[in-house]
Amino acid sequence: MAEEFFQGIGKIEYEGPDSKNPLAFKRYNPEELVEGKSMANHFRFAVAMWHTICSGGADMFGAPTRVMPWLTGSDEMEIARNKVLALFEFCQKLGVQFYCFHDRDAAPEGETFEETNAKLDEIVKLIAEQQERTGIKLLWGTACLFNHPRFMHGAATSCNADAFAYAGAQVAKAMEVAKTLGGQGYVLWGGREGYKSLLNTDMKRELDHLARFMHMVVDWKKNIGFEGQLYIEPKPMEPTKHQYDSDAAACYAFLQRYDLVEHFKLNIESNHATLAGHTFQHELEFAAANGILGSVDANRGDLLLGWDTDQFPTDIYETTLAMLTILKAGGFTTGGLNFDAHVARESIDPADLFHAHVGAMDTFARGLKIAAAIREDGVLDSFIKQRYSNWDSGIGADIEAGKVGFAELSKYIIEKGEPAANESGRVEMLEALINSYI
Amino acid sequence: MAEEFFQGIGKIEYEGPDSKNPLAFKRYNPEELVEGKSMANHFRFAVAMWHTICSGGADMFGAPTRVMPWLTGSDEMEIARNKVLALFEFCQKLGVQFYCFHDRDAAPEGETFEETNAKLDEIVKLIAEQQERTGIKLLWGTACLFNHPRFMHGAATSCNADAFAYAGAQVAKAMEVAKTLGGQGYVLWGGREGYKSLLNTDMKRELDHLARFMHMVVDWKKNIGFEGQLYIEPKPMEPTKHQYDSDAAACYAFLQRYDLVEHFKLNIESNHATLAGHTFQHELEFAAANGILGSVDANRGDLLLGWDTDQFPTDIYETTLAMLTILKAGGFTTGGLNFDAHVARESIDPADLFHAHVGAMDTFARGLKIAAAIREDGVLDSFIKQRYSNWDSGIGADIEAGKVGFAELSKYIIEKGEPAANESGRVEMLEALINSYI
Amino acid sequence: MAEEFFQGIGKIEYEGPDSKNPLAFKRYNPEELVEGKSMANHFRFAVAMWHTICSGGADMFGAPTRVMPWLTGSDEMEIARNKVLALFEFCQKLGVQFYCFHDRDAAPEGETFEETNAKLDEIVKLIAEQQERTGIKLLWGTACLFNHPRFMHGAATSCNADAFAYAGAQVAKAMEVAKTLGGQGYVLWGGREGYKSLLNTDMKRELDHLARFMHMVVDWKKNIGFEGQLYIEPKPMEPTKHQYDSDAAACYAFLQRYDLVEHFKLNIESNHATLAGHTFQHELEFAAANGILGSVDANRGDLLLGWDTDQFPTDIYETTLAMLTILKAGGFTTGGLNFDAHVARESIDPADLFHAHVGAMDTFARGLKIAAAIREDGVLDSFIKQRYSNWDSGIGADIEAGKVGFAELSKYIIEKGEPAANESGRVEMLEALINSYI
Amino acid sequence: MAEEFFQGIGKIEYEGPDSKNPLAFKRYNPEELVEGKSMANHFRFAVAMWHTICSGGADMFGAPTRVMPWLTGSDEMEIARNKVLALFEFCQKLGVQFYCFHDRDAAPEGETFEETNAKLDEIVKLIAEQQERTGIKLLWGTACLFNHPRFMHGAATSCNADAFAYAGAQVAKAMEVAKTLGGQGYVLWGGREGYKSLLNTDMKRELDHLARFMHMVVDWKKNIGFEGQLYIEPKPMEPTKHQYDSDAAACYAFLQRYDLVEHFKLNIESNHATLAGHTFQHELEFAAANGILGSVDANRGDLLLGWDTDQFPTDIYETTLAMLTILKAGGFTTGGLNFDAHVARESIDPADLFHAHVGAMDTFARGLKIAAAIREDGVLDSFIKQRYSNWDSGIGADIEAGKVGFAELSKYIIEKGEPAANESGRVEMLEALINSYI
Repeated sequence: MAEEFFQGIGKIEYEGPDSKNPLAFKRYNPEELVEGKSMANHFRFAVAMWHTICSGGADMFGAPTRVMPWLTGSDEMEIARNKVLALFEFCQKLGVQFYCFHDRDAAPEGETFEETNAKLDEIVKLIAEQQERTGIKLLWGTACLFNHPRFMHGAATSCNADAFAYAGAQVAKAMEVAKTLGGQGYVLWGGREGYKSLLNTDMKRELDHLARFMHMVVDWKKNIGFEGQLYIEPKPMEPTKHQYDSDAAACYAFLQRYDLVEHFKLNIESNHATLAGHTFQHELEFAAANGILGSVDANRGDLLLGWDTDQFPTDIYETTLAMLTILKAGGFTTGGLNFDAHVARESIDPADLFHAHVGAMDTFARGLKIAAAIREDGVLDSFIKQRYSNWDSGIGADIEAGKVGFAELSKYIIEKGEPAANESGRVEMLEALINSYI
Repeated sequence: MAEEFFQGIGKIEYEGPDSKNPLAFKRYNPEELVEGKSMANHFRFAVAMWHTICSGGADMFGAPTRVMPWLTGSDEMEIARNKVLALFEFCQKLGVQFYCFHDRDAAPEGETFEETNAKLDEIVKLIAEQQERTGIKLLWGTACLFNHPRFMHGAATSCNADAFAYAGAQVAKAMEVAKTLGGQGYVLWGGREGYKSLLNTDMKRELDHLARFMHMVVDWKKNIGFEGQLYIEPKPMEPTKHQYDSDAAACYAFLQRYDLVEHFKLNIESNHATLAGHTFQHELEFAAANGILGSVDANRGDLLLGWDTDQFPTDIYETTLAMLTILKAGGFTTGGLNFDAHVARESIDPADLFHAHVGAMDTFARGLKIAAAIREDGVLDSFIKQRYSNWDSGIGADIEAGKVGFAELSKYIIEKGEPAANESGRVEMLEALINSYI
Repeated sequence: MAEEFFQGIGKIEYEGPDSKNPLAFKRYNPEELVEGKSMANHFRFAVAMWHTICSGGADMFGAPTRVMPWLTGSDEMEIARNKVLALFEFCQKLGVQFYCFHDRDAAPEGETFEETNAKLDEIVKLIAEQQERTGIKLLWGTACLFNHPRFMHGAATSCNADAFAYAGAQVAKAMEVAKTLGGQGYVLWGGREGYKSLLNTDMKRELDHLARFMHMVVDWKKNIGFEGQLYIEPKPMEPTKHQYDSDAAACYAFLQRYDLVEHFKLNIESNHATLAGHTFQHELEFAAANGILGSVDANRGDLLLGWDTDQFPTDIYETTLAMLTILKAGGFTTGGLNFDAHVARESIDPADLFHAHVGAMDTFARGLKIAAAIREDGVLDSFIKQRYSNWDSGIGADIEAGKVGFAELSKYIIEKGEPAANESGRVEMLEALINSYI
Repeated sequence: MAEEFFQGIGKIEYEGPDSKNPLAFKRYNPEELVEGKSMANHFRFAVAMWHTICSGGADMFGAPTRVMPWLTGSDEMEIARNKVLALFEFCQKLGVQFYCFHDRDAAPEGETFEETNAKLDEIVKLIAEQQERTGIKLLWGTACLFNHPRFMHGAATSCNADAFAYAGAQVAKAMEVAKTLGGQGYVLWGGREGYKSLLNTDMKRELDHLARFMHMVVDWKKNIGFEGQLYIEPKPMEPTKHQYDSDAAACYAFLQRYDLVEHFKLNIESNHATLAGHTFQHELEFAAANGILGSVDANRGDLLLGWDTDQFPTDIYETTLAMLTILKAGGFTTGGLNFDAHVARESIDPADLFHAHVGAMDTFARGLKIAAAIREDGVLDSFIKQRYSNWDSGIGADIEAGKVGFAELSKYIIEKGEPAANESGRVEMLEALINSYI
């Protein structure tokens, strides 16, 4: 029987808002129906293997700090197996149905690419068994194309064609793994697909290569019969000076430019949004407005710090606004909320991983219920509908219908004179309204 | 005979690098050939009427300060006429061939839209005479769709359909004016085409309206036979919380989404680039890489301040990097360098307007000559060419040619093993190299 | 009898959390006791005349928009009187006990300084009558030393000694006015006490002048027998490139350097804190830790925008954390919460001023009650006390008592070996804990 | 005889501005006199052991990349010895006279504190020999109090008193080492002296502990007879959310508050300045104005990136402005310019370390010569002197002399009326002037 890594911690239960137990859900009640769907199905929460199981808390100025009993073993493959067991133990105790991982989170590299793949296969077999045992599923897979020095100039956008080739081989394998594990999606985050300096960069050629790579992904998906959704994850900077997939708009520009829109959706991360100068909700709204909202990396940045702090999401405002947009867009299908977040370097106790996830899940549960209450009352929707109501008839309707051009508008204004008076935007009233639902 | 507004200041002459005369060009020698083209034709410098002639230096915490002798007159139309005369006097003395203006910079609004247009027509007649007299031309025209309260919720993206209609009528007129004056372009800057808060906003509907508006612009251009280039000018924020044309990538996404790419190019502003988190050169490179680089609003932001400081460009690095990209892209055709910049609130003397423009023009002249020297020596180009050279044959060439997919790449890597070693990116060496040309 | 400016709006009443009336308090119940003190006395809310009564909503790109019925009158003094009446009507209907104003908010400048003072005296007489009539009091007065061009290079730090002299005369008068009106404080915000560029600045001389000015303020306070508290208000930038009072620490450095600490406390503004890169709570904590926490300008910035947005405070987290610190520091004595905030430019209806203040007051009421509940349960205090508990005895106590130096510490470590194990900082648990009180 | 680690690279020579040799100085000519002092003595350049010899180029998303032949050896002490040899070889070939290091850069930790010190002593002996052999000196020493998990909650400000004690023992040793090596200074950078969250922090107690620590440093310095200068190095954030020594002003506030001013000066870093929202020159000016300018960590941040990029200084503007202030302040005595900078992760070749330092030294040489030329011509000084000239007599002189207060100023203004007119600040002219010297 497997070792228990998170000793002293049992299954996290829902105990309701009055519970004082920090290791119980106060708001997240997986079976509770909201808008006719269980909370579990609304969120499709996923645990990120890289942060929760693999990261020891190192930062640019300090060594790892966290207590991680699963990182023990006689060799690196035993450690790899323990990591998988720890991951599934964690998910089970937490009560989440999904996880996400990079190929290299699961298994180490070998001497050769084939050996690397063999190691991965061995671990994937264990993962499949654990999936079978627990019912926990893969939300999406991905490949780590940013850590190894071979990708230091980028992967698909490297000046080194061999790096592109290696990345292609690696992604091919990672997509096969995702298929093997029944993954519901596959994410491409271009961690080093950008530049350190324009002085040594041929941007056009790199963008063309990136598109070439994405078309290979699309072809490969068809080849191997992978039916999951493909996602691109925007991020503007860090580790590089600039990443081409800088925000949702940049991704959308790229996907359109290279005839890729139909094949990809976006995986929006809150902290990446704010690094790009946008709110989380903005990126969700933009993606939804253009039909490319796919999945979410749920975390939180510190807007006074200029790097990816990847904190757990604990701000009720942010989860409320996000859920308003996600519900409006019809909710997740293949996507979900992956906790791409890590505990503070000072949160060294394995229990902190539970504190962090429980707090975040409760915050999203609260956001969902607030959003649903606002939607049920229709207070925002009716305000917005009313606000744009003069577009539903008259000159507004004519404009929307394409019946008029500048000639007609000029005539209209000359006849009418000054436009109908503007009405107050009522932002302060609406902000107070949101508060009244919290 | 016309009053002289800039008394005591004559024609600014080129005196060469050793001149100690602050009101002489030390680097900008309009007729000097660089890469076979005169400096004047490289830059196509334009004076921005709104800043240089209209702005008194007010900021959010202070009243206007500047001495502006042309803002005197018995009524507002006389003042308007004096402003035109001051503009052309300034351009002549400075020796620039172009200017830019918003409709409302030139003439005030009247009681009715027709009256407003009549006032504008009267001033446009004077402008045309001044163009004729001086040979100075309109680089591009534009309409002010952000100052008046009627546009407080946006113009094309207002929740008020009448505001859209008014904006359409106003742009129709402004485009006619641009045609009348032989303008080489027309700019659309969406100063309030965005939102203050997502709580009261229907983003999708607003984007559709914005696209509808742009198609009307395209149709109208054809209708009236205007042959200038259309430009969109990106800016991420200020005055609103978010503007849809937030950066070059967002504009490009929008133009593609709504089938507008062939009709528009971008007018890139340095300070707008940095507000969006990008370098000026990044935005130029992105536009050039995607074939939509049109014109430039030349200024400079303060990266430690979070608003549009619109300072005059005086950083040799920035002008060098910009000119490297502009030269690589083939230089300006319809576009040019418009000084969308204002002097400090404390620079109250009319002479400061000359100091500012002279300093900026010299800085661009220097950037041009440095860029040309670097290009002549081929030091950056050859470095980049070499850096990507393994894409010119072998697996790189096969990838570019679309001959291989993931199957072939996997096979290639299995056979080859670890990719060819990466070479140093040499950023520090290249930065020192740039310095050696300054 | 006075005209009613806010027609259709009566006294704002407390209706409790279930009220759907946007113009009622849901949380702020002025007489309700929290920690033995009424909410009204906890907050000492003040209305800022400049924003609420004087500002029309202009921004750098747009004209005023707001409907302000009190800005009518046959001459500017009648308008000034109407502004006072509107202010007191607003405060009465809102149910706040305090207001704040700059000298120039109340009365316009005349042809001469004496005439200006005479105009001010006339309006101050009306204000005094209104105070008498309503019982509403002056939280603090201040002088506007940043709007007029005479202060374009600064006031106390101007390169123009006459500007210093004028500022001195103006502050002398404003302090007398504050005394006349029984003001509980006087604020010095150095809006232009800084620089646009170091190229033309003698920082040392300017700092000396600023200190000289502050000592004159101290002397004058004694001379005229003003018994209110003096405050300095930190802000790092805007309108200038850099203001010397950039944050609480910079103010504290200055006050110590020039022997002024005993005479001044700080007026901390949330939006100024975030512009300086700090959280609101950080600035409050820093001021409290050093004994210089005086009063608060309550508003909220947008951390994705780089200017002073001065939004109304509606974030429950921010008010909770602020109230935790303020309660810990013993609450306000002379100070209070002044709403240095303005409605959005699109919030044009006079009712929006009420929506904004009501929403903000409710948000602070909520923050207060959450903070009080956390304090009552002692959950944060006991956590912190426990966290530092090893400082209460042993080597920790010896260090605090000054009994040991490096020699003893070296000996201690050599004997002890590796320090006692660190414990988790539990940030995620604490964040969830805060949420459980919201 | 020692192995040569930087093979193929000889002594870097001065070849003058026309040299095309990237591994030659074009501007830095160590013996050249500027303002009567050699360049070498102006700059007192130092190589930072941690970046140049120890750092492999890892970032938060990627493994080390750099080729570092000295990191080989049969055990960690042999590697440590090789690092020292590589450091001195590098300094010699580069021609710099100083280096800086943390205790843990030089030698690894042992099982016990005593063993750690023994290892350090062994390496220090080698360093001393190398100093003797080469004449290269220690600019300043320091202790690494941020990397090891024992300092995860801070060192002097840890909630764990044992961590304070350990830090004290470690600094005691590091100061002894600095003394042994004839170090001209000792730096305290509080990398984790701050907080991750205020929720678990007692700021006042932590500040008191920090002061206690600094007094122990002062006492120890006297005890051991160390005659070097003590420095505090400001940085606002990273790795923590907030560091108490956030900027020069915060340090100065702290030093005054705890009676430490006479014992410490500041070590100002360019990238730390910009992270705090200030220009490099601002921090230098502030320190100089308050008599606490000590030394400089010369590097460069990327103002569009929000973390410590620690790039090599290659911006001529920044070095010019810095040298203007440093020259004005009298130049360095104990301090110097330490290159706290690292090459890009993609600059993997040992030669890149030379490219980076050579480029940076040339940039400072250029800044020095430009600054000296500006000073020789007196153009900025005379402008500033003239700008404040009305403080030299009349009311200005009376104010400075403390002869007048608000009563006299009021009388003065009533008699005089409107202040003397302001003159233009001429920022644009001055910026162009600076360019004319580049």
